[in-house]
Amino acid sequence: MKFLTEEKLTIVGAAGMIGSNMAQTALMMHLTPNICLYDPFAPALEGVAEELFHCGFEGANITFTSDIAEALTDAKYIVSSGGAARKAGMTREDLLKGNAAIAEQLGKDIKTYCPDVKHVVVIFNPADITGLVTLIWSGLKPSQVTTLAALDSTRLRSELAKYFHISPDEVCNSRTYGGHGEQMAVFASTTTVAGKPLTELIGTEMPVADWEALRQRVIQGGKNIIDLRGRSSFQSPAYISIEMIAAAMGGEAFRWPAGVYVDTPEFHNIMMAMETSITKEGASYKFVEGTAEEHAALKNSYEHLCKLRDEVISLGVLPPIEEWSKINPNL
Amino acid sequence: MKFLTEEKLTIVGAAGMIGSNMAQTALMMHLTPNICLYDPFAPALEGVAEELFHCGFEGANITFTSDIAEALTDAKYIVSSGGAARKAGMTREDLLKGNAAIAEQLGKDIKTYCPDVKHVVVIFNPADITGLVTLIWSGLKPSQVTTLAALDSTRLRSELAKYFHISPDEVCNSRTYGGHGEQMAVFASTTTVAGKPLTELIGTEMPVADWEALRQRVIQGGKNIIDLRGRSSFQSPAYISIEMIAAAMGGEAFRWPAGVYVDTPEFHNIMMAMETSITKEGASYKFVEGTAEEHAALKNSYEHLCKLRDEVISLGVLPPIEEWSKINPNL
Repeated sequence: MKFLTEEKLTIVGAAGMIGSNMAQTALMMHLTPNICLYDPFAPALEGVAEELFHCGFEGANITFTSDIAEALTDAKYIVSSGGAARKAGMTREDLLKGNAAIAEQLGKDIKTYCPDVKHVVVIFNPADITGLVTLIWSGLKPSQVTTLAALDSTRLRSELAKYFHISPDEVCNSRTYGGHGEQMAVFASTTTVAGKPLTELIGTEMPVADWEALRQRVIQGGKNIIDLRGRSSFQSPAYISIEMIAAAMGGEAFRWPAGVYVDTPEFHNIMMAMETSITKEGASYKFVEGTAEEHAALKNSYEHLCKLRDEVISLGVLPPIEEWSKINPNL
Repeated sequence: MKFLTEEKLTIVGAAGMIGSNMAQTALMMHLTPNICLYDPFAPALEGVAEELFHCGFEGANITFTSDIAEALTDAKYIVSSGGAARKAGMTREDLLKGNAAIAEQLGKDIKTYCPDVKHVVVIFNPADITGLVTLIWSGLKPSQVTTLAALDSTRLRSELAKYFHISPDEVCNSRTYGGHGEQMAVFASTTTVAGKPLTELIGTEMPVADWEALRQRVIQGGKNIIDLRGRSSFQSPAYISIEMIAAAMGGEAFRWPAGVYVDTPEFHNIMMAMETSITKEGASYKFVEGTAEEHAALKNSYEHLCKLRDEVISLGVLPPIEEWSKINPNL
């Protein structure tokens, strides 16, 4: 059995629905034999480990522990879904306080136990904020921490495919940028649908009202899963976040936006979805201008994230921005 | 994106935890682009389909329906986890009555809508019985219907690895045969542990009492998952059953026992775990004699299954054995 790397991948929150799926996904993708499952809930964690043992994977070295020191020591890659779950009726923002504190601890634990980690993917909500908090407290470089932001773009792809009755593969470069919450900026100008620019279709083959309704379906995509399935999405966030870590290991290129630490004259001291490349060298982003309207939506999304960030600062989980570089000299 | 086949794979029970994992697993394994998800619970089914759309798989043609005719028409491969779930405290046998009736309907639907199906894997419990009922009513050849039986063997591998503190890869050819229930026959004579025959280790490096306790852990492996995780195992049955269908599509060889229709002078008119090969040509089995004690355990397991089968006959779900060939001339 050939693996992409031999380096240790630690899955934080592995007892949960997302974490356990991530572990299975990583094993199926043959990323590394050395997978460590961490969760504070020891019995459920053992249950997940048992399930994976019972799959009979060849060449796998699956370990599990509720000791964070053991979990993170020697870890070169980390994916964390280890926050509180979003429940029906909750917004992502409701989760802010508890999960920001969890992210702070994750960052500090990374600094203590695995300062040489290569890449960390943070996916617990609101991921833009938990990723930022993790980055600051971990002391890592901005290129080393990314957050799950792709689901909005894949939802856009899926909704366009359904609307036009075509294969999702015929929808190219569907993109949302900015926050992963309800203030996300859904871009149309980057997308082609069966070879045609989406911007040309809106207002012609697709009435503007239909586009607005579709945008709303994208924004409500996560809530829709909860309504339909009675539980938060877990398969898609697990699968996509493992695609991200695979790219960071030098595997297949990651095809979607990721949340990255952004510092441009216009958008600064924030983590949000950008056009991103994830490679062995880490994550890098480029700015996509979009139409004036899209740019304004991105600006709104950014400002919403700034408010969340400032709330976290006022909660004391993060120090004021001007002190960040004292905690993390890479910022 | 290269797939093993273009033929349609239908996943029955796709809204459930096992079925939804099977769909993701099959897509990740690139078995076929043409995956149809069926479940009578339409909202949850749509939720699962949405999750898979949001994964952004390339080249996939994922459809979903609560219409069994649409689901099965043109299906060349079927995996069914579409039974009632086992709940804490229930034995597999408690599920017998309801799930046998579901299997009868599945068999009849196969005969009606996809008599040209190539292979069917049945995994809902008690799978030895539901597989048998499906086979009889479907009219398919015995080589075309298999049941999930591997988990007991993978659990034996895992328990031996834990006991001897070695990698599961160093446990070779761990095997249980017969029923998948509490009467399974756990074989020691087929297994080597770090190159040594397990039978030589029992009573020397491994006290007999430890072996007995380990055997019990294997038998209670499913219950243990429920105790630890608060839910039935779903990742391992999903993963392994997709490995079975992959083998039937001509993919990698399946490495574990499967439940197959057995008709030997000693064991007849039954479905149970045997040493099995699954290829494009279907499933074939060979008989493993084992030690006298193992053979007796297999005989016990067989007799237990015969009782279950006869119970199903007395429930009217199956006709008396002598009439089976009227329903299915391949028997």
